[in-house]
Amino acid sequence: MEALAPQAARSAASRGRLHPEPEDDVRPAFQHDRDRIIHSKAFRRLKHKTQVFFAPAGDHYRTRLTHSLEVSQIARTIAKVLRLHEELTEAIALGHDLGHTPFGHAGEKVLDALVPGGFRHYEQSLRIVDVLENDGRGLNLTWEVRDGIGRHSKGKRGSPVGLDPEKRAATLEGQIMRVADLIAYVNHDIDDAVRAGVLNESELPRDAAAVLGPSSSARIARMVKDVVVETRNGDLSEIRMSEPILDATLAMRSFLFDAVYENKEATAEFRKATGILGGLWEKVRERPDEFLDRRIVETDGLDVATRDFLAGMTDRFAVTLYERLFIPKPWVGPMAWNQL
Amino acid sequence: MEALAPQAARSAASRGRLHPEPEDDVRPAFQHDRDRIIHSKAFRRLKHKTQVFFAPAGDHYRTRLTHSLEVSQIARTIAKVLRLHEELTEAIALGHDLGHTPFGHAGEKVLDALVPGGFRHYEQSLRIVDVLENDGRGLNLTWEVRDGIGRHSKGKRGSPVGLDPEKRAATLEGQIMRVADLIAYVNHDIDDAVRAGVLNESELPRDAAAVLGPSSSARIARMVKDVVVETRNGDLSEIRMSEPILDATLAMRSFLFDAVYENKEATAEFRKATGILGGLWEKVRERPDEFLDRRIVETDGLDVATRDFLAGMTDRFAVTLYERLFIPKPWVGPMAWNQL
Amino acid sequence: MEALAPQAARSAASRGRLHPEPEDDVRPAFQHDRDRIIHSKAFRRLKHKTQVFFAPAGDHYRTRLTHSLEVSQIARTIAKVLRLHEELTEAIALGHDLGHTPFGHAGEKVLDALVPGGFRHYEQSLRIVDVLENDGRGLNLTWEVRDGIGRHSKGKRGSPVGLDPEKRAATLEGQIMRVADLIAYVNHDIDDAVRAGVLNESELPRDAAAVLGPSSSARIARMVKDVVVETRNGDLSEIRMSEPILDATLAMRSFLFDAVYENKEATAEFRKATGILGGLWEKVRERPDEFLDRRIVETDGLDVATRDFLAGMTDRFAVTLYERLFIPKPWVGPMAWNQL
Amino acid sequence: MEALAPQAARSAASRGRLHPEPEDDVRPAFQHDRDRIIHSKAFRRLKHKTQVFFAPAGDHYRTRLTHSLEVSQIARTIAKVLRLHEELTEAIALGHDLGHTPFGHAGEKVLDALVPGGFRHYEQSLRIVDVLENDGRGLNLTWEVRDGIGRHSKGKRGSPVGLDPEKRAATLEGQIMRVADLIAYVNHDIDDAVRAGVLNESELPRDAAAVLGPSSSARIARMVKDVVVETRNGDLSEIRMSEPILDATLAMRSFLFDAVYENKEATAEFRKATGILGGLWEKVRERPDEFLDRRIVETDGLDVATRDFLAGMTDRFAVTLYERLFIPKPWVGPMAWNQL
Amino acid sequence: MEALAPQAARSAASRGRLHPEPEDDVRPAFQHDRDRIIHSKAFRRLKHKTQVFFAPAGDHYRTRLTHSLEVSQIARTIAKVLRLHEELTEAIALGHDLGHTPFGHAGEKVLDALVPGGFRHYEQSLRIVDVLENDGRGLNLTWEVRDGIGRHSKGKRGSPVGLDPEKRAATLEGQIMRVADLIAYVNHDIDDAVRAGVLNESELPRDAAAVLGPSSSARIARMVKDVVVETRNGDLSEIRMSEPILDATLAMRSFLFDAVYENKEATAEFRKATGILGGLWEKVRERPDEFLDRRIVETDGLDVATRDFLAGMTDRFAVTLYERLFIPKPWVGPMAWNQL
Amino acid sequence: MEALAPQAARSAASRGRLHPEPEDDVRPAFQHDRDRIIHSKAFRRLKHKTQVFFAPAGDHYRTRLTHSLEVSQIARTIAKVLRLHEELTEAIALGHDLGHTPFGHAGEKVLDALVPGGFRHYEQSLRIVDVLENDGRGLNLTWEVRDGIGRHSKGKRGSPVGLDPEKRAATLEGQIMRVADLIAYVNHDIDDAVRAGVLNESELPRDAAAVLGPSSSARIARMVKDVVVETRNGDLSEIRMSEPILDATLAMRSFLFDAVYENKEATAEFRKATGILGGLWEKVRERPDEFLDRRIVETDGLDVATRDFLAGMTDRFAVTLYERLFIPKPWVGPMAWNQL
Repeated sequence: MEALAPQAARSAASRGRLHPEPEDDVRPAFQHDRDRIIHSKAFRRLKHKTQVFFAPAGDHYRTRLTHSLEVSQIARTIAKVLRLHEELTEAIALGHDLGHTPFGHAGEKVLDALVPGGFRHYEQSLRIVDVLENDGRGLNLTWEVRDGIGRHSKGKRGSPVGLDPEKRAATLEGQIMRVADLIAYVNHDIDDAVRAGVLNESELPRDAAAVLGPSSSARIARMVKDVVVETRNGDLSEIRMSEPILDATLAMRSFLFDAVYENKEATAEFRKATGILGGLWEKVRERPDEFLDRRIVETDGLDVATRDFLAGMTDRFAVTLYERLFIPKPWVGPMAWNQL
Repeated sequence: MEALAPQAARSAASRGRLHPEPEDDVRPAFQHDRDRIIHSKAFRRLKHKTQVFFAPAGDHYRTRLTHSLEVSQIARTIAKVLRLHEELTEAIALGHDLGHTPFGHAGEKVLDALVPGGFRHYEQSLRIVDVLENDGRGLNLTWEVRDGIGRHSKGKRGSPVGLDPEKRAATLEGQIMRVADLIAYVNHDIDDAVRAGVLNESELPRDAAAVLGPSSSARIARMVKDVVVETRNGDLSEIRMSEPILDATLAMRSFLFDAVYENKEATAEFRKATGILGGLWEKVRERPDEFLDRRIVETDGLDVATRDFLAGMTDRFAVTLYERLFIPKPWVGPMAWNQL
Repeated sequence: MEALAPQAARSAASRGRLHPEPEDDVRPAFQHDRDRIIHSKAFRRLKHKTQVFFAPAGDHYRTRLTHSLEVSQIARTIAKVLRLHEELTEAIALGHDLGHTPFGHAGEKVLDALVPGGFRHYEQSLRIVDVLENDGRGLNLTWEVRDGIGRHSKGKRGSPVGLDPEKRAATLEGQIMRVADLIAYVNHDIDDAVRAGVLNESELPRDAAAVLGPSSSARIARMVKDVVVETRNGDLSEIRMSEPILDATLAMRSFLFDAVYENKEATAEFRKATGILGGLWEKVRERPDEFLDRRIVETDGLDVATRDFLAGMTDRFAVTLYERLFIPKPWVGPMAWNQL
Repeated sequence: MEALAPQAARSAASRGRLHPEPEDDVRPAFQHDRDRIIHSKAFRRLKHKTQVFFAPAGDHYRTRLTHSLEVSQIARTIAKVLRLHEELTEAIALGHDLGHTPFGHAGEKVLDALVPGGFRHYEQSLRIVDVLENDGRGLNLTWEVRDGIGRHSKGKRGSPVGLDPEKRAATLEGQIMRVADLIAYVNHDIDDAVRAGVLNESELPRDAAAVLGPSSSARIARMVKDVVVETRNGDLSEIRMSEPILDATLAMRSFLFDAVYENKEATAEFRKATGILGGLWEKVRERPDEFLDRRIVETDGLDVATRDFLAGMTDRFAVTLYERLFIPKPWVGPMAWNQL
Repeated sequence: MEALAPQAARSAASRGRLHPEPEDDVRPAFQHDRDRIIHSKAFRRLKHKTQVFFAPAGDHYRTRLTHSLEVSQIARTIAKVLRLHEELTEAIALGHDLGHTPFGHAGEKVLDALVPGGFRHYEQSLRIVDVLENDGRGLNLTWEVRDGIGRHSKGKRGSPVGLDPEKRAATLEGQIMRVADLIAYVNHDIDDAVRAGVLNESELPRDAAAVLGPSSSARIARMVKDVVVETRNGDLSEIRMSEPILDATLAMRSFLFDAVYENKEATAEFRKATGILGGLWEKVRERPDEFLDRRIVETDGLDVATRDFLAGMTDRFAVTLYERLFIPKPWVGPMAWNQL
Repeated sequence: MEALAPQAARSAASRGRLHPEPEDDVRPAFQHDRDRIIHSKAFRRLKHKTQVFFAPAGDHYRTRLTHSLEVSQIARTIAKVLRLHEELTEAIALGHDLGHTPFGHAGEKVLDALVPGGFRHYEQSLRIVDVLENDGRGLNLTWEVRDGIGRHSKGKRGSPVGLDPEKRAATLEGQIMRVADLIAYVNHDIDDAVRAGVLNESELPRDAAAVLGPSSSARIARMVKDVVVETRNGDLSEIRMSEPILDATLAMRSFLFDAVYENKEATAEFRKATGILGGLWEKVRERPDEFLDRRIVETDGLDVATRDFLAGMTDRFAVTLYERLFIPKPWVGPMAWNQL
């Protein structure tokens, strides 16, 4: 294996963990972080948090888990070619979506309105790894992984590259994740939308498709190559994309927002998230002893404890709890002689 | 058959129908009214409006329908012995609960809070027979039946007899219904509560039980006889009960309120009515074209149309519509080559 | 309508009811009895007690209810032609199977082994009309109806006619029921067995079929006519059948026992009755307060109260209660933050 | 990796397998044993044998499989620090519960009563690895693994350490398993009971909790450390715990028995095991050809073959087979012209 | 009751039954026919043959049964006012749809293509009453009822009145049914389509609606009155409608065909009838012994027997049988020791 | 590890890939091929393609996936001992059944009749790896793996060894797979048939069983040893079996065809494949845009595209799609005021 590039992060040079902790002899710090993320409960829950289409029947639709794995694969490919730190990249990629709410974008919007001070999933990702996991002790990750997770941000508008140094991740590995996230979802959510019958390949914006390629795999290859070439051309000062590819990618994302994320039919079921999460927010706060972690209620208050509970739910957990609390069940009495 | 008592109401002497209408040669007016009520949609829906226990499994529990039939049977027995008009009594008894909301007492409380101006089920019963049935033309009943239905009122406190003349029903037949309603539910709801395992016969108030008798059927017989004797003693000036029997009956009712209607465990599922009806009230008003009778919206406004829709629902209809509107369903896409 | 034959029973000449009771002006005593039976709970339960095939999907198979109605129809036809009392005949026919256990013949065999002193469904029929119905007060029927119900007995061997006077019913109407019961089940259970695919018409005993006719309806007509003619020939001294028809009928019954009632495949599911009823017998006696009528336990003891409860169950009630008591259910705990 | 301690067991020095067999070049004997256990059918079945709560809805409750994996993790930690043989420890830990019956403690009690001579799960574990696995040829494990599995015993009273030499496992690795088993279930069953809503953390015995720590993970760490320190202090002569920690641990276990294992509500469903296993025991013996391994019936008799079959069942298998044998199914006949 | 008009049919003057049969003393022939139809199996099956919408959830949608009852009510109203024979009218109305296939119009089209010689439901109605009912003996109805049933014909084009004497029913009562059928379905199928969300009241053809009235009940009243007045004006020579009302009615029917019966969305599920009935036609003929009445196969051949079986099915019966024959079921083997 | 035999294939000496492609530094070509097959969608689908028994309830029945893994295990054992290329052997074994249709042998027969030019699953396996996988780009495997997959052929008659050089696989590794396939299914399908209750061990052909051994594992060991010894005796010129073992193996196969594959009861559900696949073939071709890959339709025509779609389906996918297309669903309309 070739040596790491000088710009690569190094476990040994890490700025350290949230709480001091002797490092393992065998597994370097960043690899250790990746393993901790993979074995966390929040990571396993990603499997049951659907991305765009609610709990679909087919097994081929993305969930937050398959998305995280795809981001990780793309990010590692880029990191490897650029001779940057693969395990650090992987750790950040696998951890970047831990804080996602149930019910995708719709769920996040609802929580943002409910929680005093608003809700941002990347902040919640950090809270999970810093505090909530491990029965309240957190995963105690390195500064670099935490920086990468916390800097991640996506949305309808923000650019994946070219950010002010103080806004972007401090490591190149962290910057890779941001661009890999965009590459992954722009392409794979199109696949899902086509498969779901919401979109027809032929409706994609022609100019962007001409620049990027005729299929998802072609487009991913094109984007990855561009990131690698451009970043190399810039001597690894930061992660970069060329203007034509960036423009085409952003055009694709813009189309995706209009045609899928904000498509009324596709998101009809997700929009019920408002009722579900709103109803849970209310009931849970009425009976905190029954639902919430007493320690968090005491130290951070009811809002924070409720937010942590709701944001942590999988789609199915949220629906099941809602049904328990809101749908009346038939009375089941005894079966005795006077029932005859 | 013996002749009617002089104090009895008579079809031929009716103050007439809401809208003038030639009477049938064969069926006198009050009998005609009874038939119209029996064939109305609202009457059939009573079968699916449960009384105290939500949708219980066994088929021995009361519904609004079986309750109405029992009230009718008790009322007719009293009317017959007093030589009052049986069909008029029956018509009032069968119609008195038409306006009940889904989810029993809990449902009524919720609607009362939601509807501007409040909600009273006896007013809604009148609205149903006057307006809503028959595709908006109403059942066009006689003044006497309408008076009986509209004067009916029950609750935790009101007495079934001894009301001011202007508050009680104008006919003795209408007054009978009020007392028969109390006799029926006080006794039969105890039966249901015992069957449901919520109550034990031995917990009934001793004094009242000593006065009234050891079983439901004994108590009903005792109460009916008292009404007949007392009313006869009063020369049929009004429907009456003796003080000891009335007191014992009201003690029984009071016990029933504490032990059953307001019993937390028994009414746990019914209390979800708040969420269900509140949620429907909101959604239905957002999309009136989809749910409401356009004619009512135009003439009486959105509140009235929504009230009529919600109050008319059976328990099951309300739950099913709520689930459709609030519980997300898995995405069902096509099954094509790219799903393999 | 022609006058009753001199040998017919008459309401006015009844030996009276179990407990003295003023008779109705309008409905004569035997008609009153018929109505009381029809409105009893035990009669309604017959609908859910299957005859030969357990809970079959199609709705054409006999239950104890349809069997009772068919017996009644045949019995009334015979009574009418012989100018005997139709309502008395009907009352006995509709009441004769009230005491049947769940799970048909198999169920009866099991209870017979479980109950100290054995179990006979016709005795239980009497117990139901005398005691259990009407919340412990019984239906208080006339002596003649009770005699008819109590004398009924069928089985693999006993003859329907020609019994010693002290063994047969005291009224001709009661004797009719016994023969009508045989006519009904011999023919209709063959129909059901063919429909169920257990039997092929061509397998019926040839000689008997040659005598009786090629189809169920032909055979019923043949048997009914024979009873009428023979009984008339005997001047209505007792209900009679001619030897050839009786022999052929008994040959048919014998075949039916071999081919259907004791057919291993057809009765495989019914034989599970042993486990079900045996299991319930045990559990119910362990927790009598939960399951049994306290009054019966106190006056008649645990065995009788358990017998009354088990014998009264419909097939479905027995299975459902068994599942509740014997099949473990998954633990349903709370859904709180530590379930995430 | 550091060298093994002198007191550690060694593959090369094993007293050998049940049946002589050439050893693999690559995998040493103890590692081979671990792999054989992991690939055995009995090991896979542990996943569907629940520990305390019957087939719970949530995925977080322990099963025999997750328990075995946790025991293995704790045991390996201890073995590693003490420089004992990790793979041997792991093999014993993963194999120690193979012989468990369905339905947890309740199931074992029932089988103990049914099987002539009684039933002990550790003997059955040995029988599985010696005989039943591998289509009757057994896994042919080493003497040391078999000794560890066979010496394992837990229960309400027995101490995990300090046994007579002839009663305890011959290897230190085998002794570790016994103490690791206790550490695992005392802590994790408390977790499960809290999650299930059966227990509240605050109800734990105060003194023991003060000694051991405020959370499961803290208590496990405390116990493990104690075992390591004490055993080292004793120069690895045997596996030891200090008196204060041992006392606190046993107090915790005692509490657990009272509050959970013998808690009526928590074990209500498990107590149905008596009916299920008793019923199966009877039916299976009636039709051995249909259910049992003919070879075992011939060589060891009906009792042993039935015991092997019942003890091997998962909870679900037992329930499903019971339902097949005891619950009647609706008759499904043909659908022909005469069904119309 | 007023006397019958001279033009009315009379039981006593009937041309007689298919097979000579002594008439009942009490019930005149036409009334007897009505009762036979009501008690026939084919009549009961109408309840499970849906009219336009396949097996809808709500219970307000028409089935062939509710349609037949509505036709009967309209026809009897007309007959009564014109002093024609009510029971004859009722018998024809209740019997006119007995021969309908499953799956409504779609089912009839499929059978018409499958059966050599084609399929017409009114011919099948006759076959049912003449042959199939009563286990192959038919209902043996009077000539007048059979004429009325056999002359009935509806469809997209044919006029309900003004037919050539040799094409129309011989009795006025038979002619009434034809016009009542049209009045019923034109109005009630509009109701159902609105309720089903397929149609909006406002889309009805304006001119026709202006002539006939703004609601179903208004339109029915208008049409009935027109038939009565016009027929009276023609001295009861035949049943008549005025040209404006007839034109408006036919316009309404034409609209209904376009907007509902041939509406792609509304009939999507019904169009699967082709596959279902085609598949059954094939399989049933492969195994006639299993499915068909042997007697019909022998006397009328396989085509006729198959047609009778398929045409007689309810929608649900057809679907269930199809699933049995075409959808593979998981293998259910034994549960023995080697399944562990 | 010992060196490869001179007759073994070598990655470095491969005749190359379908399309030229730079080889990986780390993973040699054949190992790369194995990984590509394991990660292909077609390989994952094998899990849901049952072998002999349709979608059985127990988890122990073979699917195409478990069969492929067993073939691979046997083939690798042989390859290892003969010092041939394990990864090449594994790649061919895991890929040899990729082209199997749903519904086992029955499904293949149906497709063979439907597809113009016929259908052979080994050709379809090649088509999958060459074209269909990877969104139309194929897996681009080496010539040797493709040769092995394409030469594979089994059936009722063909011998696994001794073929003409031009008919057999070019590599010894490819020849191993053919013999390993036979060894695997002859033995394991017997196991499954016994477990399914279709076969009794004692019915196996005595002579063959005497030669090969008394249990599946004994027989596999015997056959594998024979292949190794015979092939070594022939100096690895080709893969060989001795005549007695070959004869006994073929006798076993012959028995298996008669007793299981062509057993009417065992394959009853599979024979419904004719209807399912025939129905899908028709519907899919009517609406190609909805179901088929447009690119294949354009380049290879409708037949090929339909074949690729149908052959790729799992059993469950085929059944589900068939139900969607052929079974009518109840109408689900709105729930508005006029549904009350």
